[in-house]
Amino acid sequence: MTQADKAELLRRLHAGPEVLVLPNAWDAISARVVEGEGFPAVATSSAGLAAVFGYPDGQKIPRSEMLFLIGKIAGAVEVPVTADIEAGYDDAIQTAHDVIASGAVGMNLEDMARDELLPLASQIEMIMAVRAASKAAGVPLVINARTDIFLAQHGDAGTRFERAVERLNAFHDAGADCLFAPGVVDPETIGRLAAAVKGPLNILASIGSPSIAEMKKLGVRRVSLGSGPSRVALGAHQRLVRTLRDSGTFAALTTEAVPFAEVQKLLLRN
Amino acid sequence: MTQADKAELLRRLHAGPEVLVLPNAWDAISARVVEGEGFPAVATSSAGLAAVFGYPDGQKIPRSEMLFLIGKIAGAVEVPVTADIEAGYDDAIQTAHDVIASGAVGMNLEDMARDELLPLASQIEMIMAVRAASKAAGVPLVINARTDIFLAQHGDAGTRFERAVERLNAFHDAGADCLFAPGVVDPETIGRLAAAVKGPLNILASIGSPSIAEMKKLGVRRVSLGSGPSRVALGAHQRLVRTLRDSGTFAALTTEAVPFAEVQKLLLRN
Repeated sequence: MTQADKAELLRRLHAGPEVLVLPNAWDAISARVVEGEGFPAVATSSAGLAAVFGYPDGQKIPRSEMLFLIGKIAGAVEVPVTADIEAGYDDAIQTAHDVIASGAVGMNLEDMARDELLPLASQIEMIMAVRAASKAAGVPLVINARTDIFLAQHGDAGTRFERAVERLNAFHDAGADCLFAPGVVDPETIGRLAAAVKGPLNILASIGSPSIAEMKKLGVRRVSLGSGPSRVALGAHQRLVRTLRDSGTFAALTTEAVPFAEVQKLLLRN
Repeated sequence: MTQADKAELLRRLHAGPEVLVLPNAWDAISARVVEGEGFPAVATSSAGLAAVFGYPDGQKIPRSEMLFLIGKIAGAVEVPVTADIEAGYDDAIQTAHDVIASGAVGMNLEDMARDELLPLASQIEMIMAVRAASKAAGVPLVINARTDIFLAQHGDAGTRFERAVERLNAFHDAGADCLFAPGVVDPETIGRLAAAVKGPLNILASIGSPSIAEMKKLGVRRVSLGSGPSRVALGAHQRLVRTLRDSGTFAALTTEAVPFAEVQKLLLRN
């Protein structure tokens, strides 16, 4: 399968009626687990990847390091990989070329950087440019265009829904394949949003979110977990470390760990 | 504190009577958790680091990538970091220089590569050379010399103990600061080993190992967990992924994850 084929495969996974469920990976082995358990695609978490190298979230990690790790993830799995590259690291076209070079076939594009909501016109321009550049490069990237209006609780709460819908539909008209509105958890708003946007809707599963079955009924086409899986993994590590410190025992090695041989088998798949 | 001071601090942590307990890290954020919970040093896991980039264990990861990630870990914490660099990647002197450049102050040196036990004479020569080279470079690395005789179940079982002791004591005489015998779990053998070796003994905690308190009574000075913590973290991820696939729910985000803000606080420590 060519990289262009993988991009088309990922695009088709947004067509419904099933929800595309993406438990985000943060390194190569976590991606192999997602693929190994039968998921048809892997999404990366920008916050999760940044933490691997010690950076906080929010474009603090250099583009080259983020893309290096995305490349390790894309190289570790056969299924399509979609990359979370925040707001494009100040040069979305270069980042799109780097995403293609890394082996990934999709990318998120956020509309907030340095706590500022970016102008709608420049986001539209960026999406159109990434669409054209990736097509010209032979791998039409699956663009997941995100608005941070809900997640950042931006501006007047009473107008958030309308402003988010305006942005998401403008992103759709500019060529985005999927429309991402993290920060929305109540079923009523999710359902209204799915009905109001013109393209497939991506919802971030977090504390209090409806189940995948409920999301499907509400019209959601893609559910991702962001940094959640990386923080679940880190939680298990934190509990092991605390138990070791407080009682000098390490039962989790027996009861919770993936056996060494199983990890090696996942890594030796080829 | 200079890097040389950190090396001396790590060396002193082997002097007893307390056991130096090392829940190994595999990336920057896992190291920050270890430091954040009060541990006085961080050890890396070679298998854990290799898996981050998608490589199986056993010197499959390029030296440059292993050292890059060790550098991210050493840069993420204030406490001394000791690096697991397998059998030295075919050039232990160069690797020792790279370890110092990464910011770490200790290193493991194994006596097995490509499933072959390396000649004792060459191991002795390597330890002496690393001792001299790191001293000349101004950072006398804490050398943890390891024999794989038990872990690899090498040769005649009846002579393993004597052969391991012979090797470990030769490593000690060559200048190793700590003597590592992974693969020994029964208390009786651990106690005999601690009594027979001339330097501080490092035991790998795994399934069936005695508790830290018991290890202390047996005379162990250092207990590390190898890839265990990384596999405990991966186990939590695997369970989340399986539950998501089988029931479309993600309760672990609520019950098991480190909160997003807490992860960011760990990363923003400086």
